[in-house]
Amino acid sequence: MINNLFTKIAEKDKRSIARALTEIENNSKLSEKIIDEISSSFGKSYRIGITGPPGAGKSTLTNALLKKLVEMNYYVGVIAVDPTSPFTGGALLGDRIRMSEIGTHPNVFIRSMASRGSLGGLTKFASEAGDVFDYAGFDFTIYETVGVGQSELDIANNVDTTVVVLVPESGDSIQAMKAGLMEIGDIFVMNKADRAGADQAVASLQFILSFREHNENSWLPPIIKTIASEYKGIDDLYNKILEHKNFLLKNNLLELKRKQRFKTRIKELISNQLKKELWTLERNNLLDENINLIFEKKLKLSTVVNQLVNSFRNNN
Amino acid sequence: MINNLFTKIAEKDKRSIARALTEIENNSKLSEKIIDEISSSFGKSYRIGITGPPGAGKSTLTNALLKKLVEMNYYVGVIAVDPTSPFTGGALLGDRIRMSEIGTHPNVFIRSMASRGSLGGLTKFASEAGDVFDYAGFDFTIYETVGVGQSELDIANNVDTTVVVLVPESGDSIQAMKAGLMEIGDIFVMNKADRAGADQAVASLQFILSFREHNENSWLPPIIKTIASEYKGIDDLYNKILEHKNFLLKNNLLELKRKQRFKTRIKELISNQLKKELWTLERNNLLDENINLIFEKKLKLSTVVNQLVNSFRNNN
Repeated sequence: MINNLFTKIAEKDKRSIARALTEIENNSKLSEKIIDEISSSFGKSYRIGITGPPGAGKSTLTNALLKKLVEMNYYVGVIAVDPTSPFTGGALLGDRIRMSEIGTHPNVFIRSMASRGSLGGLTKFASEAGDVFDYAGFDFTIYETVGVGQSELDIANNVDTTVVVLVPESGDSIQAMKAGLMEIGDIFVMNKADRAGADQAVASLQFILSFREHNENSWLPPIIKTIASEYKGIDDLYNKILEHKNFLLKNNLLELKRKQRFKTRIKELISNQLKKELWTLERNNLLDENINLIFEKKLKLSTVVNQLVNSFRNNN
Repeated sequence: MINNLFTKIAEKDKRSIARALTEIENNSKLSEKIIDEISSSFGKSYRIGITGPPGAGKSTLTNALLKKLVEMNYYVGVIAVDPTSPFTGGALLGDRIRMSEIGTHPNVFIRSMASRGSLGGLTKFASEAGDVFDYAGFDFTIYETVGVGQSELDIANNVDTTVVVLVPESGDSIQAMKAGLMEIGDIFVMNKADRAGADQAVASLQFILSFREHNENSWLPPIIKTIASEYKGIDDLYNKILEHKNFLLKNNLLELKRKQRFKTRIKELISNQLKKELWTLERNNLLDENINLIFEKKLKLSTVVNQLVNSFRNNN
């Protein structure tokens, strides 16, 4: 039965892809088998991350890039990572809807993840979803995420090309840098480039990027002007993505990146496994008691840490 | 010698406080002893987190609140968490400088942390710094951080009262919610409240907050209008913080929060200890070899994970 699922995924059957993603997301019994099968096959699907501050037009740009890739007859998987509040659900996320026009195309598979507060899980699921698309033989996987903070850094670590989307009014350069987006971009997009101040924003972005460490062999992140809503500049973006891909290939960085990624992921899996085995109900209760003893100054913090580590290493 | 350090910290000696923070930040040999000593003493310093999108005026508000607290003769420690790009350093962070006027007051101790990409370390240092201020007998510890993403969630989990700062132009409600700030605020501040659209922004914020789950016993997050640069609304903010503190005290939530925080921190310390012991050079090399075998389909991912976990638990 599960072999049938793998066959279907490899035939790009959407229902089977959706099923695999759900099993992985729910950490179901089948998920380990699915991950085992798909994790050894990766390397074909090129992973693009699209990030930027709220309001920069990431969804519209993703939409436009998607259209371009579909025109080129590529198969594309999209993971929209959405740090939405859990108490409002996803009901108000109007800009997702804009993706639905191209979202129904047979070459496209879109999955949204509401992920607030479970960042470790986000990275894990996002990479495994990429592996599923890979296994299915999709040409591209696009990750869209709201930038600023840890999530866009995690995504940057999990893709081949990171596209940072800004708008002229993204704020002065200092704010943009504080957002920490400058260091992770392989390609910068100044979207809504018909707005006032666009050229100035590009110039100051250029200035900021000139501080990035580089030598003759490093990739110089280009800045592209787009008006995603009018589908302007999308060819440019597409070409720059291919250029970056070729740069990575030429310098053997693509395989290196992917192995590094895989290694990080395995280490996370192992950490999670250790945590699961460590925090039995018994040790949790012991910790509660010890915390009270620390407050009463009868135990030291370091003693508690060492005792728990040792009990784990010796007794099981 | 180290006992002398503790005595000096307890006397609020700034150089000794700075020294303790540096030792902890550098994870020096002394740091364990320092943490052991300070970690059992906490509970006096009230922790306030100030977060919000870039450009909301967090630093100005922190500055104003600081001034208010100093006027009340309180001692205040400030940790400014700054996810700056490492390649530009902190040189361009103009808005930090604005804090320096009050920053030199004898009752105030300010520490900036540039923390990009080391989020686990950030939380650890931030809480331990709070413990140092606590040990010194400071009345308040303020954490300031750029919101959106994981860092502000981490800070929210480490403070008693979280203040979310917004401005009328923070963008439409959907974007604000995507930023995920709505669920963590105990108090909301609409800063720059003299700007156009302020009342409308307050109204839509009110609407969004009405979706938050609550019952007759829960805290209803108030919205305060401020013009921090003109020191307007700061008394209101201060009073609401005290109100929230009393609410927590009355419902026995303050101690609960603090114990929970301490527990999470010990668990992190233990995880880090396990990771450190696990990833010897030998096991790192083994993992590299195994990754190649996975790609050659000679080994399964789950086998690799289980073997490494077991080797750690049995062989040391």
